[in-house]
Amino acid sequence: MRIDLNSDSGESFGNWKMGDDAKMMTIVTSANVACGFHAGDPHVMRATVTAAAANNVTVGAHPAYRDLPNFGRVFMDLPPAELTDAVIYQIGALQAMSKACGTKVSYVKPHGALYNVIVHHEAHAAAVVKAVAEVDPDLPILCLPGTVIERVTREAGLNPVAEAFADRAYTPEGTLVSRQVPGAVLHDPVIIQQRVVQMATEGTVTAVDGSTVQLNAQSICVHGDTPGAVAIAQGVREALESAGVELVSFA
Amino acid sequence: MRIDLNSDSGESFGNWKMGDDAKMMTIVTSANVACGFHAGDPHVMRATVTAAAANNVTVGAHPAYRDLPNFGRVFMDLPPAELTDAVIYQIGALQAMSKACGTKVSYVKPHGALYNVIVHHEAHAAAVVKAVAEVDPDLPILCLPGTVIERVTREAGLNPVAEAFADRAYTPEGTLVSRQVPGAVLHDPVIIQQRVVQMATEGTVTAVDGSTVQLNAQSICVHGDTPGAVAIAQGVREALESAGVELVSFA
Amino acid sequence: MRIDLNSDSGESFGNWKMGDDAKMMTIVTSANVACGFHAGDPHVMRATVTAAAANNVTVGAHPAYRDLPNFGRVFMDLPPAELTDAVIYQIGALQAMSKACGTKVSYVKPHGALYNVIVHHEAHAAAVVKAVAEVDPDLPILCLPGTVIERVTREAGLNPVAEAFADRAYTPEGTLVSRQVPGAVLHDPVIIQQRVVQMATEGTVTAVDGSTVQLNAQSICVHGDTPGAVAIAQGVREALESAGVELVSFA
Amino acid sequence: MRIDLNSDSGESFGNWKMGDDAKMMTIVTSANVACGFHAGDPHVMRATVTAAAANNVTVGAHPAYRDLPNFGRVFMDLPPAELTDAVIYQIGALQAMSKACGTKVSYVKPHGALYNVIVHHEAHAAAVVKAVAEVDPDLPILCLPGTVIERVTREAGLNPVAEAFADRAYTPEGTLVSRQVPGAVLHDPVIIQQRVVQMATEGTVTAVDGSTVQLNAQSICVHGDTPGAVAIAQGVREALESAGVELVSFA
Repeated sequence: MRIDLNSDSGESFGNWKMGDDAKMMTIVTSANVACGFHAGDPHVMRATVTAAAANNVTVGAHPAYRDLPNFGRVFMDLPPAELTDAVIYQIGALQAMSKACGTKVSYVKPHGALYNVIVHHEAHAAAVVKAVAEVDPDLPILCLPGTVIERVTREAGLNPVAEAFADRAYTPEGTLVSRQVPGAVLHDPVIIQQRVVQMATEGTVTAVDGSTVQLNAQSICVHGDTPGAVAIAQGVREALESAGVELVSFA
Repeated sequence: MRIDLNSDSGESFGNWKMGDDAKMMTIVTSANVACGFHAGDPHVMRATVTAAAANNVTVGAHPAYRDLPNFGRVFMDLPPAELTDAVIYQIGALQAMSKACGTKVSYVKPHGALYNVIVHHEAHAAAVVKAVAEVDPDLPILCLPGTVIERVTREAGLNPVAEAFADRAYTPEGTLVSRQVPGAVLHDPVIIQQRVVQMATEGTVTAVDGSTVQLNAQSICVHGDTPGAVAIAQGVREALESAGVELVSFA
Repeated sequence: MRIDLNSDSGESFGNWKMGDDAKMMTIVTSANVACGFHAGDPHVMRATVTAAAANNVTVGAHPAYRDLPNFGRVFMDLPPAELTDAVIYQIGALQAMSKACGTKVSYVKPHGALYNVIVHHEAHAAAVVKAVAEVDPDLPILCLPGTVIERVTREAGLNPVAEAFADRAYTPEGTLVSRQVPGAVLHDPVIIQQRVVQMATEGTVTAVDGSTVQLNAQSICVHGDTPGAVAIAQGVREALESAGVELVSFA
Repeated sequence: MRIDLNSDSGESFGNWKMGDDAKMMTIVTSANVACGFHAGDPHVMRATVTAAAANNVTVGAHPAYRDLPNFGRVFMDLPPAELTDAVIYQIGALQAMSKACGTKVSYVKPHGALYNVIVHHEAHAAAVVKAVAEVDPDLPILCLPGTVIERVTREAGLNPVAEAFADRAYTPEGTLVSRQVPGAVLHDPVIIQQRVVQMATEGTVTAVDGSTVQLNAQSICVHGDTPGAVAIAQGVREALESAGVELVSFA
């Protein structure tokens, strides 16, 4: 039994700090590193990648729509060809910084609105896949299972990697309950730990109606943007280790 | 006898067009491609690199201070460590785009204020050299001969490549006459052609006081940002070919 | 008989030039001045407003989604409260620049994707109207007649001003034929002139099915972003004057 | 005896938070509000100005070089005419937002590198003064006494207001000790309180050599960007009130 833990990282920008990357790098096995379009600047990227390398954490590119003021959380109706190029640009910038820091980019996970949009948006999903195929078709794409992006990635001959969310409620269909719905985000550390162990050891999650849903996630996403989130992530790691699950990067 | 012709390219941004890259790619042997910090966006970068590849033009990264509103033409008193990371970021972005377009980045030429500042500014020169050393120490740095950047590049064990300017007046010391001085920029196509042939065949230029200055440039910079500039560049190419000079990339 | 001619202006940015504002200011009676979010920077804004003032052209604010790389032409799914604040910011910036140049902002016309979105998007239309109401409820909003933005403006007690497009085909319902449809944009100067005179003297336009549609536009939008466009705009002005229509700002 | 307390505010940006504006607005009498060029976005500006108005805090514009990645803390060698226009733009944006929130801009205090540069840089000082003169010559400019900006402001017929820094060491000449020098920034709340009371009641400060320097500051700058800074600012306010000093805006 083995699982990957991933977390968004490098989301500071200039003088503004976000998250506790130093601590999270001791918890996770994969770091989704912001590439400057929603967060992160070149100097922040170096600090993040350096910390990842020092902790043997796998580096992933975390490309986004170009929108610092909204942190990449707003849909932008871009022409797909421009989106492809924006993703290539971001991956490349992180590749060079990773090389400078003695490591490399090993996967891609889209960020924010882009992550959510390619769950259903064929053209933007295909644009992301095209970018990865052109930069390095061996890079896996971390995504929500059962979605358009997972299918499009597979159809292109690339490698989708399914992830689950430690602190999100699931529908019986295996999709995330909308954040607009009460209870969509879980906060009880004990319940979160139990769910994550189930995800890792049984490949399933209990949906909001009590049914058991097959996920087969290879990675579990945890958050680190608040002190509470870091503590939950630490608890998740310890619970998995206690259950005999090996924490290791999927890449 | 052989020489390289280089030109700034990819300097459009979004809806704004600048220069005639399509034409210039048929003239030059090396293209200094803007990387998004002073000009160029990912989509423009693709078009530029694609055109370069189609014409067998060597692609160089053209990093700059991060300053779109001033086109990278204003000195920014950045901490050197941040400048290093900014240059790494820009080179990497262009490397990935070049890979996507079937070519690669073969040299680095700083842009605008950064180009001029590292002629004398030790810390910023060292910051640029450190960036190149960390990304790929085999990449030559195109620079003004006899300057701080040339020395720092050499001292770091990297490869400086000397360039001359087709349309600029030179001092007896081999530096450029300031643009503030009348006559600093030459406009007569015939005179420019004669000077360029002399640069390529004799390795010298005639300074403003009539003395002959040794340059030993391996590349000559021509401009393409106006219709007149494109015509001059075309004339330069033809004059060199008529003089039996082979036009070939230094990289 | 009187009509206003308006045109987008001030759409240069830094080193990048767009349009021929100097010429267009001798043709139009109202200038929609970019405010820095899709185009225009403070220095460009000064040049534009100065030229407008020198030609007795009325200055209007031309706010947009914050997206220089896409020239404000891409829908951004912003929270409405953020859109309101973005519009206030842009109007205010232009108000101060207009004061510095001895003139003032006399109306608001949303730009690009924002213009098109508020034709049907209630929340973004209301966000724009709220911004104008908070800055200065006496400022008219220039918009497409028969749309959500026109209705929302009126319901808020503000003043919508209907505009027509000199070079666009109309449906029998009085909406613009989509640019995706062949023939959506007219190019024949003589036909454009005839249509504009009809708009100004009869308040109608001939739709693509030959029917006559009532528009009652108080302003007609002409373009100035190409040499051809400037010539067409000049022809429109002359045709209106020949028809005895007085060209005067609606504001 | 009366004095003003001012503090930088509204320095969050998008998803990134900085400072505790809500608390600081209960302490200071004047808020230097970021205008979007070094920090602050339109939505943050609304929140800041609304909080200021709710606490009867005077609103000042806090313009900066356009440089979000470096928080306006890096010198940019701009053409003065462009700097003037950038300052006008920022003041205007805040004026409109202030009007929307039922208050107004009552003074201007340059930020960061711009603040420090105009202490000695004639052209940039004059550029700032020109901007204020063109937008509203009645707006005072908050600045370090005995500097180029103070002189240029006065010579232009505008109103410079001298400020002192609660937590900075002073030279015998009345200038700030460079941050590079150990002891340049004071951290002991009791000492800071004593110095501030002396500034307000005697118009002097004790320099690093023990001499007494005349400052005659009308405003004292306190910081609010860390929890410790907020506590110090609160202590400063209480010490001034205990000493019988009335806290009131200079504007």
